[in-house]
Amino acid sequence: MRTLIQNVQILTMKKGEKSFHGELLIENDRISAIGTNLPKTEAKANKIIDGKGMLAMPGLINAHQHTPMSLLKGFSDDCKLMEWLEHKMLPAEARMTPEDIYWGAKLAMAEMIKSGTTAFADMYVHMNEIAAAVQETGMRASLTRGLVFMQNDGGKRLTEALDLIDRWHGQADGRITTMFGPHAPYTCPPEPLAEIIKLASQKNLPIHIHLAETVEEVAKIKTKYNCSPTAYLHNLGLFTEAHTLLAHGVHLTHGDIQLLRGMKGGVAHNPVSNMKLGCGIAPVAALIDTSVTVGLGTDGSGSASTVDMFEGIKAAAWMQKMEAGDPSVFPAHQVLEMATAESAKLLRLDHETGTLEAGKKADLILVDMNKPHLQPVHHVESLLAYAVNGSDVDTTIVNGKLLMQGRKLLTIDEEELLHQAAIRARRIVDGI
Amino acid sequence: MRTLIQNVQILTMKKGEKSFHGELLIENDRISAIGTNLPKTEAKANKIIDGKGMLAMPGLINAHQHTPMSLLKGFSDDCKLMEWLEHKMLPAEARMTPEDIYWGAKLAMAEMIKSGTTAFADMYVHMNEIAAAVQETGMRASLTRGLVFMQNDGGKRLTEALDLIDRWHGQADGRITTMFGPHAPYTCPPEPLAEIIKLASQKNLPIHIHLAETVEEVAKIKTKYNCSPTAYLHNLGLFTEAHTLLAHGVHLTHGDIQLLRGMKGGVAHNPVSNMKLGCGIAPVAALIDTSVTVGLGTDGSGSASTVDMFEGIKAAAWMQKMEAGDPSVFPAHQVLEMATAESAKLLRLDHETGTLEAGKKADLILVDMNKPHLQPVHHVESLLAYAVNGSDVDTTIVNGKLLMQGRKLLTIDEEELLHQAAIRARRIVDGI
Repeated sequence: MRTLIQNVQILTMKKGEKSFHGELLIENDRISAIGTNLPKTEAKANKIIDGKGMLAMPGLINAHQHTPMSLLKGFSDDCKLMEWLEHKMLPAEARMTPEDIYWGAKLAMAEMIKSGTTAFADMYVHMNEIAAAVQETGMRASLTRGLVFMQNDGGKRLTEALDLIDRWHGQADGRITTMFGPHAPYTCPPEPLAEIIKLASQKNLPIHIHLAETVEEVAKIKTKYNCSPTAYLHNLGLFTEAHTLLAHGVHLTHGDIQLLRGMKGGVAHNPVSNMKLGCGIAPVAALIDTSVTVGLGTDGSGSASTVDMFEGIKAAAWMQKMEAGDPSVFPAHQVLEMATAESAKLLRLDHETGTLEAGKKADLILVDMNKPHLQPVHHVESLLAYAVNGSDVDTTIVNGKLLMQGRKLLTIDEEELLHQAAIRARRIVDGI
Repeated sequence: MRTLIQNVQILTMKKGEKSFHGELLIENDRISAIGTNLPKTEAKANKIIDGKGMLAMPGLINAHQHTPMSLLKGFSDDCKLMEWLEHKMLPAEARMTPEDIYWGAKLAMAEMIKSGTTAFADMYVHMNEIAAAVQETGMRASLTRGLVFMQNDGGKRLTEALDLIDRWHGQADGRITTMFGPHAPYTCPPEPLAEIIKLASQKNLPIHIHLAETVEEVAKIKTKYNCSPTAYLHNLGLFTEAHTLLAHGVHLTHGDIQLLRGMKGGVAHNPVSNMKLGCGIAPVAALIDTSVTVGLGTDGSGSASTVDMFEGIKAAAWMQKMEAGDPSVFPAHQVLEMATAESAKLLRLDHETGTLEAGKKADLILVDMNKPHLQPVHHVESLLAYAVNGSDVDTTIVNGKLLMQGRKLLTIDEEELLHQAAIRARRIVDGI
């Protein structure tokens, strides 16, 4: 199967490359050619997509998600953090059946495909259901069974984590990869955490973990271990032993950031969630100055409401410009890079996705620029970073396959999905 | 003409009123009835709109805009503030012809109608062109000729301001109102500013003025007048003499805020512009605690990129929650109120618009909630504040007239508009 996208503005997101008008040829799951006036490309294509008025760019990569929480979006906004967690989220989550998880994950995937996200990192439970949804929807995902070691569960959770890895790593035409998911420093004591780090190192699998999201977490770890959450993870060897995806990293001292220098992986910045929950501003500039990779995520829509990565791109730039008191920091190209190439590194998928290049997987989106809020075009990257929203995405392609075209989902029955979401959500929150 | 919107979820934004499923009847330019099971409404209507899956709410009111700058969106992002102003915006604006102003204003209006804004406050030059665009597009606007008194212009600007008022106040079926527009404390010396305040008081017209947007402005006024920008305006009697729309109000001390207590009008908060330009966080909570009205604006798209008020609603809530370190402050209802009822007060139009009530002008929008990112619905106000974006608006009605339905603009030729915007923008920035 060969698909040619022609007559399109292309932003490859390769370092230093400006956008240009050209063509892009997809052969099966990969980009086989990209450029201006490709020789005789048209003759080779089975399918031609006219990209007139469109901008092709790498699909966005959401580096931190809890997909099934989409069933709980807007359920408990404007609450204090502990009220939100203890009286709303935990009771609701406890009622979610495996089927609810499946539909919730699928709902988040529909949102993601419709707003230009092609890959995501997910941490939740009942991962078989989420993996099945990934397989069906056609997205790319790095899946993680969240591990909380606060009570002895007889090894149940860890068994499920290993089962997820055995069963799904490399499956769905290679679209599914897996990580180990110790939840956070404050929910993982040293012994089981060290064990997970060892397992990850042995199996050469990454680790996805929350870090320093709130001041409460920092205080808790200080009381318990007399160090920062970052130092706690460092002391267990995490940053040398495994490729690590650190979600949040809001409350990091200068010393903490030094401990991250040279780490494999990096930090998933979640600007919308951090603002909306009042957590604080992550030291993104300092992390980047220390050569720590910073990608972008949304967090689950139970807290962030939206999993529209274009919102995250705007929010990331706005927050850092405000913090610096300087509109010139975090320019458009850099925040777009965080949402694509840099997030790909966090998922350890940068050899396959994150930029548009011949040989890489065909994970890309077409943004419809022919709209009043996106015209005139002085600098296309400025518009992408500061003016586009998820609804401007016309076409989403993952692994060479069309998942959305003309805003119509092609792998998901949207009507059935919204029906299932409505009835399940009502049951889950009833009386809470 | 009677239009019935039936089978719709309605959020009136009246104090303390929850959303309900019902009907809304429009007679000519006004809402004549609103409620559940209106008696025999259907028989009375010439036109019926089925609101299935939609949410009706008051149109958003953008309390601070410079519409023609839409031609310069994305032209000079990521620059230092003075570089942006002196080397980009001012040279580009100097090249704008009256026809450019007309098309730029119309472009912003197309964006606004498409993202659910029904009324706005505008400050710019060549106001006749903007008024003509308002007349054609069908929007509601409070227009202001910006007045800078840095050089003697022989009274030209003031003459234009008075001409705007004489010619357009109350025109376009009453959709156009006017204000006096002394630009800012640092561009208006005491003598001409006192004169404007006197004129506004005599004519019983409001004043629209920028205030304390940057630390540089605060320093400039301190050096020149040995007081804060707010005290400078207070000393000239502004807050007792005229209804005043203060744009920005970022850098206000506790003392400044006390000077605003009891003022007529209030502050137009522009969260996106303030973040994106690195200006700072306005003390919105303290202003509201002092009973100062705070509405929402976007600022011009030359700086803010987008004039999507739903972005502004999100940004306002996020910023204040982050600043307070508390997700429970500025709940959904409050930020929605800022964008509707509170903004209406700033424009001195709260007797006519800002809430859905029988007797008020029919300025309203229908938001299409039947989408993956807006389902399931636990609390509709949460979704409106934190998940909806401008593209979810299906229908926009101003003064009882449909300006958009099914996302199609009904008073603007969108193709011609985008064509004009492209060629004019290219000419304006050529070589800058």
